Order: sequence, then C-alpha cells, then structure tokens
Amino acid sequence: MSFREDGVAAVEWVASYLERLRDFPVLAQVEPGELRSRLPASPPDGPEPFAAVLRDLEDVLLPGLTHWQSPRFFAYFANTGAEPGVLAELLAAGLNQVGILWRTSPALQELEELTLDWLAQLLGLPDGLHGHIEDTASTCTMVALAAARHATTGARVVVASEHAHSSVAKACRLLELELRTAPVDEAFRLRPDALDLAGACAVVATVGTTSTSSVDPVAAIADRAEAAGAWLHVDAAYAGSAAVCPELRHHFDGWGRADSVVVNPHKWLLTPMDCSTLWTRRPGDLRAAFSLVPEYLRVSEEVASLSEYSPVLGRRFRALKLWAVLRCYGRGGLQERIREAVRLAALFEEWVREEPGWEATAPRPFSLVCFRRDGSDADNEALLERVNASGEVFLSHTRLGGRYSLRLAVGNARTTEDDVRLAWDVLRREAARR
Amino acid sequence: MSFREDGVAAVEWVASYLERLRDFPVLAQVEPGELRSRLPASPPDGPEPFAAVLRDLEDVLLPGLTHWQSPRFFAYFANTGAEPGVLAELLAAGLNQVGILWRTSPALQELEELTLDWLAQLLGLPDGLHGHIEDTASTCTMVALAAARHATTGARVVVASEHAHSSVAKACRLLELELRTAPVDEAFRLRPDALDLAGACAVVATVGTTSTSSVDPVAAIADRAEAAGAWLHVDAAYAGSAAVCPELRHHFDGWGRADSVVVNPHKWLLTPMDCSTLWTRRPGDLRAAFSLVPEYLRVSEEVASLSEYSPVLGRRFRALKLWAVLRCYGRGGLQERIREAVRLAALFEEWVREEPGWEATAPRPFSLVCFRRDGSDADNEALLERVNASGEVFLSHTRLGGRYSLRLAVGNARTTEDDVRLAWDVLRREAARR
Repeated sequence: MSFREDGVAAVEWVASYLERLRDFPVLAQVEPGELRSRLPASPPDGPEPFAAVLRDLEDVLLPGLTHWQSPRFFAYFANTGAEPGVLAELLAAGLNQVGILWRTSPALQELEELTLDWLAQLLGLPDGLHGHIEDTASTCTMVALAAARHATTGARVVVASEHAHSSVAKACRLLELELRTAPVDEAFRLRPDALDLAGACAVVATVGTTSTSSVDPVAAIADRAEAAGAWLHVDAAYAGSAAVCPELRHHFDGWGRADSVVVNPHKWLLTPMDCSTLWTRRPGDLRAAFSLVPEYLRVSEEVASLSEYSPVLGRRFRALKLWAVLRCYGRGGLQERIREAVRLAALFEEWVREEPGWEATAPRPFSLVCFRRDGSDADNEALLERVNASGEVFLSHTRLGGRYSLRLAVGNARTTEDDVRLAWDVLRREAARR
Repeated sequence: MSFREDGVAAVEWVASYLERLRDFPVLAQVEPGELRSRLPASPPDGPEPFAAVLRDLEDVLLPGLTHWQSPRFFAYFANTGAEPGVLAELLAAGLNQVGILWRTSPALQELEELTLDWLAQLLGLPDGLHGHIEDTASTCTMVALAAARHATTGARVVVASEHAHSSVAKACRLLELELRTAPVDEAFRLRPDALDLAGACAVVATVGTTSTSSVDPVAAIADRAEAAGAWLHVDAAYAGSAAVCPELRHHFDGWGRADSVVVNPHKWLLTPMDCSTLWTRRPGDLRAAFSLVPEYLRVSEEVASLSEYSPVLGRRFRALKLWAVLRCYGRGGLQERIREAVRLAALFEEWVREEPGWEATAPRPFSLVCFRRDGSDADNEALLERVNASGEVFLSHTRLGGRYSLRLAVGNARTTEDDVRLAWDVLRREAARR
C-alpha cells in the first residue's frame, strides 16, 4: 500500500463528503441490523487494499450514517468537526503518541496544558486553573465528583436540578453517591433559595441545560456551596463555548468561583469528537483521588503526569486538534461562529412566536429553541417523527412540565439562514399534513 | 483554507514523518517546560493558516515528541499506528459521528458490534459475547469491576496478583472496593492454590502482566471464581492480540470462561490510540450498572445503545480504524506481525542469556524480555538512563523481587532484526562505559 496515494484518496473522500452534506438524509434512513447484514460476518484471511475500505464506506456505511456534519442537523446539540481539527486528527494518529508520563510525550502534555490555558483565557476563566482534556463531559463530571467525594469525607450527597445532564446521575451511581434533586423556577433554573446542601459533598450547576439550555444562577449557588463547604461543579458542556463572546459572558457570572468547570469544545467550538475540557482550582484534590504511580512508571523527572488527574493511564494527543482549531479560527473566528448560531436561533424563535398555532416553550439564552405546535403530545411526537423521516432536517425533543416539546439546536458552523428556514418550512408543511 | 490542499500537505507530512522515524532520538531530549516556553502564551486574535500549524509541528513540537512510532521504541509495550488505521482516523474525524443512541449513528454502532465479533473470532474467543470499545484498558477494567460490584451485592473485595496492572488498583479506589493481593509463584504467576476469594466480588487474572508479561493460570482461576461466585475479569490488554496465532493460543486457556476480557488493539494490533476492546458474557450486568436513558434520549426504536454498557454517553467512531486494520492486514498479516515480534524478542533473549555478565530475569512468553546486567540496582538504573539519553533506542524498567530490571518490549511493526541488534549493541556499549 502507498500511504501517500491512499492518503490523498482519503482526503479527497472527506472533501467530497463535506461538499455533499446537503444531499444526504440527515437522519439515517435504515432499519436496525440493516448495515450489519450488508457486511461480511467474518474478517478476511488475507489483506485487502485500503481502496476497498473507502469503497465500502461510500457504498455500505454512508446510508447508515446520521450526518452530524450536516448544516441541517438541529438535534441534541449540533456540533462541527471543522477542517483544521479533522486534519489535526490525521496528524495525531500518524504520531500515535501515548501520554502516560510526561517523558512519554512532553509535547502532548505541554500542549494540552498550554491549550487549556489558551481556552481559559478565551472564555474569561480565572488565571491559574489546572486544565486537562477528557473524552466527554460524562468523564469530566465523574472526575469532579470523585474528587469532591474524596475531599469531603462522609458527605455522600450530590445536589443538582432535575435539568442537570444524565451524566450527573450516571456518575453518582458509579461513585455510589446519592443524587438529590433541587427545585427549579419557571425558566428551568435551579432555585438557590430552595437549595438544601446538608450532607452534600458537591452541587452541580448547569450553564446551558440539555433540555432547554437554561442557566442556573451560578453566583448565588457558589455562595451557598462555599457556606456549606460543598464542591461546586459547573457543567457548561454545551454553552461554555459561548463565553468567547463578551456580550454572552453575563450568563457565566460566578463560574470562576467553581471548584471545577467542564466545557466541550467538541460541541460548539468546532473541534471533532472527542474533546471535553475540565478546569479545576483544586488540582490537589483531583490528584489525591486519582494519582497512582506503579514501579514501572517511576522516573527521575519531577513532573506530575496528566494521568494523575484522570481515571485513565494512557491518553491520546487530543490537544493537537483543539490547538489547530484555536489557531486557524482565532478569537475573532470563534466569536463569529457563536454569534451566527445565536442569531439564527433567535430568528427561528421569532418565527415560532409569531406563527399562530405554535409556541416557544422555554426562554432561549443561546442557540437552542424549544417549541411545540398546538395539539396533543402525541401530535407533536408524530410531527417530529414525520419531519425526521423526511430526511430534510433532524430535530430532537424533550419533555417540559410534562409536555412534549421539540428542540431545534443551531450549532453546526455550516448552517445558514436558508437551512434554518428549510427546517421551519418542513415543520409547517408536516404540521399541516396531520 | 482549502481542505484538499491542506489535507495533501498533512498526508505528506505524516508520510515524511514515518520515513524519518530512525532519524529522531526515540526519547524526547527536552527539559520540562521547554516546549511550552517556545509557544505563545495566548491564543491568536485572528485566523492563522493551517500551514502555520504544520510548520510549528515540524519546528517546535517534533523535538518534544517521544517517538512511539519508531522501530527503536522498546519501552512499556511498544505499539504501532499502522497506515490504514491512521487514515481511518482521518475519515472518522471527517464524519464526526457521535454515538449516543443507535439512531445517532447506526453505522458507528453496528460496525463496532461487527468488528468486535470479527476480532473475537480472530482471537478464538467464544461465540455470542457482547463486545464494545472503550478508550483504554483502565476504563474497560473499571467497567468490568463496576458490573461485578453491582452483580454481587455486599461483596466488596477484588483479588488480583501484585503483578496486575495499576489500573486495577485505580478502579478499586474509584469504586471503593478493597483490593486484596494474591501471591505469585517464581514465574510471577498468580497462584490459584493460594487464592482467597472470601468476600470477593471479582478476581482479575492477567495474561501478559505489565512488568514481565507473565501469564496467570486462567483456567484454574476460573474454577475458583466459579465456585466462589466471583466475577472473573481477564486483563489481556497487551498479550491478547497474540491469540491471533494458534501456536500462542495455549497461553489463553480458559479465558473464554471469563465474565469479561479486555484486549488493547492499540497496543499490539496495529491500531492507533485509542482503542481498547471489552467483551462480556454478562451484558445484562453491564447494562444494569450503566444504563440510564433520560427523556430527551427516549426514542421509538428498540435497540440498546452502546452507551448503556459504558460510563460515557457519547462515543466517537473508533471502530472504523480497527475495521480498516483488520481488513488491510487480514488474519495472515496480523499473525505475521505478532510472530515476527515474538521471534525478535526470542533472539534478544538468547543474546542476553549467552552473554557473560547479563541475565534474563523473567520467563518470556511473548515479546517482552526482562533482564539485567551484573551489578547493583543503581548501576542498572544508570545504564538505562545512559541508553535512553543516547536517543538511539528507548527501553523501560521494572522491579522484580526487589531488584531493578530492564525491559525490552518488541511490538512496533516496523522493528527489524537490525533495530533489535542496535539495542543490544547500545546496551553493551553503555554498560562497558560505567
């Protein structure tokens, strides 16, 4: 095999894929098991050319993809694997670094530390935080809660609102902590006045909840957490990227007082999966919870390895793609994409609010619009199924105050006003068909 | 930016990097902080071209890399990011799939399931196991022990030999399980006759320990685990790949009886970081420990998502690179690389055993040789430091029976007999200098 020849073909395939994004049904139109049935049940005995992999990617796998890169992907939190990040992943795989100790890849560790400092500056986080990268926010939140459990012996309760991400509950199950639900106000924000932190080792505040992107009042929660001696973890996995824009920074008041903060550059900051960033002002507590250096890893240099802050020993070179994205967009380029997503979401929200028979079901601080059509939950659910089955756009749903709501999340960097208008047209067309 | 143009440049950089591997010092010859001091302390305000990233990679980062891809990397467990895997990572980043539910990427989920079945067939594991991919063996072992803890209420002890990987201790700390150490025999193998499983929810058997690659007697341990009702987790992170060779399969006797097995294709099976594979015959217990589906992820199709078996919610498309590697090498190609690594390690072991003043310090079932030079621990430690400082080769160490031992791990697919001979020459040269 010629790496150069196959490599150029792979680049060409990705380039062509990105050009064709509007041609594909956004949500995969296959049945469970269909993909698998079209592939051999056993591996080959002899070698196949890489061209065969590319051919099967085009012919067999493509119909089984849901196109997260599509500008018409409005489900969950839309994301983007931007070009510099995509190519940086090629470089990282070519280098195949394994961060275990500092010496196993000084560049990996120091670039990760530097890039996290860069990002903290872009987001307006305080100086001097310790930052590192994990795969997803699920892991970051688990790491934070494990450190909190370790730091506050005896207290086994974690408090979060019912709108906190499911990863909080998952981490609590793993860590055998009790999750206590705090009440929210009419805008789905945790109510600090009703916050009971007795026996709590940690409280999780969310800036940009998954269902509605609501913003918990972090500063008021920080007051309560400090008084109670509880660890404050801020989950800004989706919305955190918006802090690059000064005019949106007010949503983040108080997050600099958190003991730990998670932001996912792989969501709204143009970085390909996976790249979740965790900062803490209590690195000693993370190390106390996770550091463990066996004999075969003892070396003379006095540098703490990033694995001492993390549940895993070996890490790949994730910082390279984040560094490439931050450089190739710069502060201004990142702000531009965030602003455009917010502008498009505001536009869609306006259309919904002005159209008889439709209503917005939650405030919109960022780029997520929650809404519904007059009618029953079943009507709205059926509407969503028809819209997604059309393949033209892909949206998701949630349940607010017991009622089924649709969610349109703008966040793909390739999304234009025409794409958002198409979503609105498809929604109204399918609603008229019921 | 032109993605095609930048992409071709990135491919060319990787191709050139792989051609130059023997030109670089294997272990990075930099001081802590040196890399970072050569990079700007703050991110740029405006966009930079991708070419600037490539230029800094060459000029600034390269000296800070320890070259895992080098054929002269003999430390830890040597690995390889083979070309088809590297290009598949480019494709995966371009597709930017996020596996949350089946519908968010049917191709990701079904290819992961299929590829794990393929690999189970290649390794001679039983039919019908449930397989999925995690980032590293640390996570796989943690998942297995979490399932074991859940499945055996009240039992809070995990038993493993002192040669089990540090990730077992790390998982126990996270899961608040007590780790009890089982004694080993003179060949560093867990002694089933001395195994105390009272109160144990799990026992970990290792095929290919990190220090010496010793093989715990899995079949005998399985007998004891079954009798005690304890979960048997087999850690074959490094050596598991060797099971593709029928003549090495005897080392794995009994692993098909395990409740869970972890193998790292990113170690000895040519797959770039990160790709750790976990199989279980008790998927229901993994699901019971990890499944949690919030409202915004409830959908109509009746397919369990891989996130229900895993601590994280979103997963990237790791199966693509493993699939590409299995196809582009085939069974025969994989066997060839394993056999060559074992042959080269056997050769090196022979040289050590025949040379006066040197001794092998552990049996060699696979491709790792443990050895030392006559003299004190300090002499051997200084020898290793001199060898690694030369940059010609990179080895690591361990401590066996209290004595400092050197480790030479063959495992990079580009390693030739000349590379191994160079390691031996450098070792003897530096030993003569003391």
